[in-house]
Amino acid sequence: MPAFIRAIPDGDDRERLTCPDCGFIAYENPKIVVGSVVSAEGRILLCRRAIEPRRGFWTLPAGFMEMGETVEEGARREAWEEAQVRIALEGVLAVYSIARLGQVQVIFRAGFAEPGFAAGPESLEVRLFGWEEIPWAEIAFPSARWALTRWQEMAGKPLAAPATNPPEDARGTRPLPQPAGL
Amino acid sequence: MPAFIRAIPDGDDRERLTCPDCGFIAYENPKIVVGSVVSAEGRILLCRRAIEPRRGFWTLPAGFMEMGETVEEGARREAWEEAQVRIALEGVLAVYSIARLGQVQVIFRAGFAEPGFAAGPESLEVRLFGWEEIPWAEIAFPSARWALTRWQEMAGKPLAAPATNPPEDARGTRPLPQPAGL
Repeated sequence: MPAFIRAIPDGDDRERLTCPDCGFIAYENPKIVVGSVVSAEGRILLCRRAIEPRRGFWTLPAGFMEMGETVEEGARREAWEEAQVRIALEGVLAVYSIARLGQVQVIFRAGFAEPGFAAGPESLEVRLFGWEEIPWAEIAFPSARWALTRWQEMAGKPLAAPATNPPEDARGTRPLPQPAGL
Repeated sequence: MPAFIRAIPDGDDRERLTCPDCGFIAYENPKIVVGSVVSAEGRILLCRRAIEPRRGFWTLPAGFMEMGETVEEGARREAWEEAQVRIALEGVLAVYSIARLGQVQVIFRAGFAEPGFAAGPESLEVRLFGWEEIPWAEIAFPSARWALTRWQEMAGKPLAAPATNPPEDARGTRPLPQPAGL
């Protein structure tokens, strides 16, 4: 890492990592994790982690959102990468903030868009669990437990999902309108 | 900015900005904007922007989430900074992805926690607008229009808000549990 120093940029109100040579400011912002509770006939898809942290523990298909995608696209990508499953999103199940880690998690409720699943490169194993079979002591992260609990609370209930982008700009790719003058 | 090059780090599957001298990888992740549609007796609080982009146009109190805060704390902070208003959050109204900008917006529905508001340093003016008075041609961003439209659709209806952190860890600050062994 470059020899950044902490300094308050002009017009800002808090310290940022700044390169004393070139003035580059490395803003640190919270990162977005996108994931899903994916179920079929009341059984939930969990992945046993092949990587640290919490290798060997079970979790939801979830991971860091990438540039250029929407939260929905990210959740579908992660389900494919970690569990080789094509999912159909039903709505937002939860929005969790992990202030300690600088993380916001957007968790969807989802079903299978196509049959079939398998362990991706970051998973040791992928399995469907009935609610009574969930290995609570071996769930990797508190937020995965929260999301599973929330899923059970909402089982069979419609998700009044928060609005997502309107159909005419479903990916948020339109440019700003030209200023029309004040 | 340092003379970063684009290279695929070991174990990754896409190019990242990398310093060829020291190996530092500058991951670029989508940023989170937190904001609120704040209303009192059916009138909505809007801020006229004192800064670019879209200086002079009207928008919701909203801005980039900072490290160390939750989405809820960020939304309250932005309302205070931009409109000098203390707000009470009711729930998540919308989650928008602006893929073009690498942005995710978490927009709350909120009321006033205390009376009073005023223009903060980034606002030229702050006003309450009845629905029929909203200056649609002078709204700064498409997503602000989406959120206002969503607010109207949900007016008077309960928000089946997505779950937020459970009360026992409302800020997501607890450490991971110790691995219990497999």
